[in-house]
Amino acid sequence: MTQPTIAKENDRHFMEMAMEMAAHATIETSPNPKVGCVIVKNDVVIGRGWTQAVGQAHAEVQALRDAAAQGHDVRGATAYVTLEPCSHYGRTPPCANALVDAGIARVVAAIEDANPQVAGRGFAILCAAGIEVASASDFAWADMVLTAREMNVGFLKRMETGKPWVRMKVAGSLDGKTALPSGQSQWITSSAARQDGHVWRARADAILTGIGTVLADNPALNVRGIATPRQPKKIVLDSHLRISPDAKLFDDADVLIVCAKEDASKRAQIEERGAEVLCIVDSSGRVDLHSLMLELGRRQLNEVHVEAGAILNGALVDANCVDELLVYLAPKLLGSGAGLFALSELTHVDQAKQLMFHDVSRVGDDLRVLARFKK
Amino acid sequence: MTQPTIAKENDRHFMEMAMEMAAHATIETSPNPKVGCVIVKNDVVIGRGWTQAVGQAHAEVQALRDAAAQGHDVRGATAYVTLEPCSHYGRTPPCANALVDAGIARVVAAIEDANPQVAGRGFAILCAAGIEVASASDFAWADMVLTAREMNVGFLKRMETGKPWVRMKVAGSLDGKTALPSGQSQWITSSAARQDGHVWRARADAILTGIGTVLADNPALNVRGIATPRQPKKIVLDSHLRISPDAKLFDDADVLIVCAKEDASKRAQIEERGAEVLCIVDSSGRVDLHSLMLELGRRQLNEVHVEAGAILNGALVDANCVDELLVYLAPKLLGSGAGLFALSELTHVDQAKQLMFHDVSRVGDDLRVLARFKK
Repeated sequence: MTQPTIAKENDRHFMEMAMEMAAHATIETSPNPKVGCVIVKNDVVIGRGWTQAVGQAHAEVQALRDAAAQGHDVRGATAYVTLEPCSHYGRTPPCANALVDAGIARVVAAIEDANPQVAGRGFAILCAAGIEVASASDFAWADMVLTAREMNVGFLKRMETGKPWVRMKVAGSLDGKTALPSGQSQWITSSAARQDGHVWRARADAILTGIGTVLADNPALNVRGIATPRQPKKIVLDSHLRISPDAKLFDDADVLIVCAKEDASKRAQIEERGAEVLCIVDSSGRVDLHSLMLELGRRQLNEVHVEAGAILNGALVDANCVDELLVYLAPKLLGSGAGLFALSELTHVDQAKQLMFHDVSRVGDDLRVLARFKK
Repeated sequence: MTQPTIAKENDRHFMEMAMEMAAHATIETSPNPKVGCVIVKNDVVIGRGWTQAVGQAHAEVQALRDAAAQGHDVRGATAYVTLEPCSHYGRTPPCANALVDAGIARVVAAIEDANPQVAGRGFAILCAAGIEVASASDFAWADMVLTAREMNVGFLKRMETGKPWVRMKVAGSLDGKTALPSGQSQWITSSAARQDGHVWRARADAILTGIGTVLADNPALNVRGIATPRQPKKIVLDSHLRISPDAKLFDDADVLIVCAKEDASKRAQIEERGAEVLCIVDSSGRVDLHSLMLELGRRQLNEVHVEAGAILNGALVDANCVDELLVYLAPKLLGSGAGLFALSELTHVDQAKQLMFHDVSRVGDDLRVLARFKK
């Protein structure tokens, strides 16, 4: 990063516009990050762009094309981007080079790309070409850094740790019950909350559940009731391959069954349904959750949405595999019944998993609480 | 109520000022309602007042005195009051008569007093004297009606039903656990939440708990850490008079022990500690919760604050004796342990007690949820 540490007048305004551009990017960009870009010359915006579906143009290239289409000369202009321009040949050529070739004079980026193939190299290409480079952290724009990270929370976690961002959805009564002692749970939360749940399913790259839920509810495990450009992958943790080949979830999309014990005939039945079987076993004979997460990271899944029962929920939380809880609380009391998480028993309150409340909203009659685990 | 249904210019503004005046009234007004009053002549506020400690002047009289002290002539003025002026000789003479005697020409009141000794009679006295009378509902000021009711939620419930407003405080983890399986619960919520709990204790006329909590925790059951003009009454539900005369809660304030079985020697020990014993038994030999609430209403308690264990919490909720839950949720997961409410078991989700979320705030690291039972 080069000299400047004081933002120019309007830098903040144009970065906010770049953030707005990024918001146009859809889940189809995945596994690429959602990025926005505006190109500004003499304080006038001459080009706008955002990341297109995977394999198509990134935000910077879109913005350069937008400027060209309108007959603007971008030489000497400033590009505002929400993420460090990429420096590697992936599905598309590097954006850093495109900015250099176009004659851009200054680049302001919100954050550095955590992708080890980029991390600082995009900036280095720009600097080497004599382009002035600044980032939101150079300007001490803490809020911009947060907003930019939030846009790509899954992508950045995957780049930094090799694992996807795991969001676990649970729904229950205000007193923390997810079902009656009889097992009945339909419906504790409102239809508005259930529909909101599908919005969160839609933004994920995969929906993960356990065999218990599949055997009990035979869920379709897809996005319904809202428009989506693509269905998330479906992942079922099924140690002993107990799933029926008739399970509803095989009816569409991409299914991955994760087991801890091989069973050739069961595997064949499942593969017949077009699904994949993956055996990832730990030393105690169960599915190795950490290895699974690394595998999902290798498969370029940025966000995984978990909707499972208390046992798998508890196992994933106990194994520190969860980043965020998405909790719907209905304004009801059930008193007794199933809890939300079957965790290993604590002997002291201080051992409890700690979270931070991130967002609380009303959804229909219910409360939606987003809480993140402290690292 | 007389003719006018269209508010005059500034009526709303002056009623908002009266609301602000009411906010100055303290818990020392109890069992009287908190009321505010402004007297306005030629669009100028010439007197302001709010209810003083019980036995002292009400808001209207305070406002008349304030105007007089500043040498203003209130004849022909308008009085804005947040509650219908009282019409009966209680500890002080009726305010309706004071307004008539002072020569007030118009009275705008937010709501009618639900007190059967007043209900409409205050307005009748004013109308009979030729004073123009209007209320917030005449003007379709739904928000003002709500605000005025909210100020005296306990007083109004007592006037309407003979029973106090019962607010039940519970604190637990995000997954609805109030203690570990070992019983340990110190501390699940933050010190900020615990201090906030004392603010709610302070506004109540009584704090109610069960003998289980007294035997387990030996609580002082008073307001600590914040300034308060008076300590609430302490009420312990103790069916079999198991309380020790050495219990810490006897050390100060007004204590009422409610039992379901007489025990002359135990009663004598408790009375020796300056406390009262009351036996209120139902047909099954337990404390009759409805009769208790009526008794507390007769004793002019407007708001009762419950801090008890899951069993008494559940019994009070099951008996529909609770108006509002004050729930502190800590951003933690405990997994197993004691729940918040031991309710009678449900066979269908639709039987669950229904609430409405009323207010959700962050208190320290915790979430504070106010939820009200649907009637």
